[in-house]
Amino acid sequence: MTTVGILGGGQLARMLALAGAPLGLRFLVMDTSAEACAGQFAPLLVGDYRDEAALADFAARVDVVTFDFENVPAESARWLSARVPVFPNPGALGVAQDRLAEKMLFRELAIPVPPFADIASREDLDAALARIGTPCILKTRRLGYDGKGQFRLKPAPGAGTPAAVQRVADQAWAALGPQAERVGLILEAFVPFDRELSVVAMRGRDGSFDTWPLTENWHVDGVLSASLAPARVDPALAETAYGHARRLAEALDYVGVFALELFCHGGELLANELAPRVHNSGHWTIEGAETSQFENHLRAVLGLAAGATTVRGHACMLNWIGELPDPAPVLAEAGGHWHDYGKSPRAGRKVGHATLRADTPEALAAALQRGGDALGRQSQVAPAIAALRG
Amino acid sequence: MTTVGILGGGQLARMLALAGAPLGLRFLVMDTSAEACAGQFAPLLVGDYRDEAALADFAARVDVVTFDFENVPAESARWLSARVPVFPNPGALGVAQDRLAEKMLFRELAIPVPPFADIASREDLDAALARIGTPCILKTRRLGYDGKGQFRLKPAPGAGTPAAVQRVADQAWAALGPQAERVGLILEAFVPFDRELSVVAMRGRDGSFDTWPLTENWHVDGVLSASLAPARVDPALAETAYGHARRLAEALDYVGVFALELFCHGGELLANELAPRVHNSGHWTIEGAETSQFENHLRAVLGLAAGATTVRGHACMLNWIGELPDPAPVLAEAGGHWHDYGKSPRAGRKVGHATLRADTPEALAAALQRGGDALGRQSQVAPAIAALRG
Repeated sequence: MTTVGILGGGQLARMLALAGAPLGLRFLVMDTSAEACAGQFAPLLVGDYRDEAALADFAARVDVVTFDFENVPAESARWLSARVPVFPNPGALGVAQDRLAEKMLFRELAIPVPPFADIASREDLDAALARIGTPCILKTRRLGYDGKGQFRLKPAPGAGTPAAVQRVADQAWAALGPQAERVGLILEAFVPFDRELSVVAMRGRDGSFDTWPLTENWHVDGVLSASLAPARVDPALAETAYGHARRLAEALDYVGVFALELFCHGGELLANELAPRVHNSGHWTIEGAETSQFENHLRAVLGLAAGATTVRGHACMLNWIGELPDPAPVLAEAGGHWHDYGKSPRAGRKVGHATLRADTPEALAAALQRGGDALGRQSQVAPAIAALRG
Repeated sequence: MTTVGILGGGQLARMLALAGAPLGLRFLVMDTSAEACAGQFAPLLVGDYRDEAALADFAARVDVVTFDFENVPAESARWLSARVPVFPNPGALGVAQDRLAEKMLFRELAIPVPPFADIASREDLDAALARIGTPCILKTRRLGYDGKGQFRLKPAPGAGTPAAVQRVADQAWAALGPQAERVGLILEAFVPFDRELSVVAMRGRDGSFDTWPLTENWHVDGVLSASLAPARVDPALAETAYGHARRLAEALDYVGVFALELFCHGGELLANELAPRVHNSGHWTIEGAETSQFENHLRAVLGLAAGATTVRGHACMLNWIGELPDPAPVLAEAGGHWHDYGKSPRAGRKVGHATLRADTPEALAAALQRGGDALGRQSQVAPAIAALRG
């Protein structure tokens, strides 16, 4: 009997446990909250990730450790890895936690990235602004999640006079400057992208590598709103993206599922970030692929053979943020699948998702249209419908 | 928040809970054993199904009740149904628990059945034997499960002289006669069938009816060994089977998923029995259909719209009895899916299953061949391969 320990007890841990049950696995989920939704279907250990006694208890009860949440302190992951196998390895986790290290690795691996600069001081910010220009985004190097810890620098009014640029820099520095010393900052050019894409990929303990088809994503207010797979792209572009993901996984000796988020601008791909875990843009794989990202993450972590990542037709995932809509219009669709995470409603919180699956792009577009109309969510489904019909 | 109560905590309850989690459901499973495998993923209430205090506790904590196990005492189901909705209804459960009532209902609904007779005494047995002849099977009317409580009467040696027939009857009566008064007995003709088929079907609270495609099954020692879907049959035969299932569901005002097991002999269908629950011959629906029997059972019981029962290619389910084989050969197949029920090994016990899925019959046959060879289970896969290639 193998027990998988998961650090973080949100919807990703919950879906991992549900996917792992048929493999005969047991789970132990560690979270700081007794209300963590994975606890509804797996034993929950409530504790702080920095509490060595809690970590020791956790380590003693599991055979392998993985993550629901990438912002577990890297030192906790390292502490655990001295006692029990941890996948992905703490070094890979550390890189993914640090926007600067991540971007530098992308550059080292010849994965194109938007212009960026390490910002340690106000002087650095001024110099970087002069080089990169606006619009751009000042971000903390660590602990950013879903748009938090970010400040967007819009083009300065008044035709970008030095004084106007200084005022924009003042605002940004007021917002995030105090964090420059503690967590570090990075300035990133804002890329006027045409499309947002992601590769959800996996690498096994034996170095085997596979990906699901490229996924197209749409964000609203920095939070994923909809994902469509397979993305309708030039096959050569998809191959380039898979190559980026593979080089990244090999460089990090990564084991498990991860997502590489990409911008597509004028037919070129630019890497945005690496999510070192199962990813929201891969939720469609539960119904839309032969093997889901959740099952394959567990297979990878346990050293089992990967399941096929073949798609079943076309799938679109719609995220439910804040509160769940009425499930009836989704359940009424032949390929409608509902995912309620068992959380209480709260503004900005991911509380569930739906996946609509169909055999053809036309049928999926029609299902999205009906579902969007019935739910009054036309704007959420519109970009995916346009992509399917485009 | 809706809590579904399940009476019985075996693999069916376990798979119901795993399928219901995405619907936002909570579960409470009641079982007589603290080791019940559903308890690994759902809260478990340990108690006797005849203990009113335990039943009252159970009823107070759930919103609706359903079954993992059809031999829950019908009076317990009735007691619960006065307090909380119970699906399927206790009347339907009662009919399915009683082989005689079930056979009489089949006959009333013009669903052909093999010859049978109600056996209340040794005289009844002699008279029925004279009418039905051998081979035949004497069974208890109630509480039979997977071949228990059955006595097979083989053709009497000595060309069936009256004395030889008497000796066979003596043996049968010695085995089961004592149960004639307490649970009742039924004598059933042994049908020399060509194929065993099942319809897994569902009926909603609103009377809507649907089925998954007809499934072909192979039993070994009275226990299901393999299921293949869609069964390769004349469409008219499948329609006849679906019609039988529909009439049965309507007559019983059945709500939920059930299976109707059928024999096919010389192109004619004969009803064998009704299983008033999700069914082993429907396990392939988890990966082989748009919506699984487990999710649709819950949707039906909760009054939600049914999910599509459309198949995805071709699927074969292999049961693991007694102990699990090595999962590696199954996981190595592109369409290989593993189901370990989390039980300890025990002779005759269903401890797991695998489903192999492929887009074409040829690809499925090839996968079964490779899997069967790697596991040394050629005899288990052979009938399904023959059906796929036949």
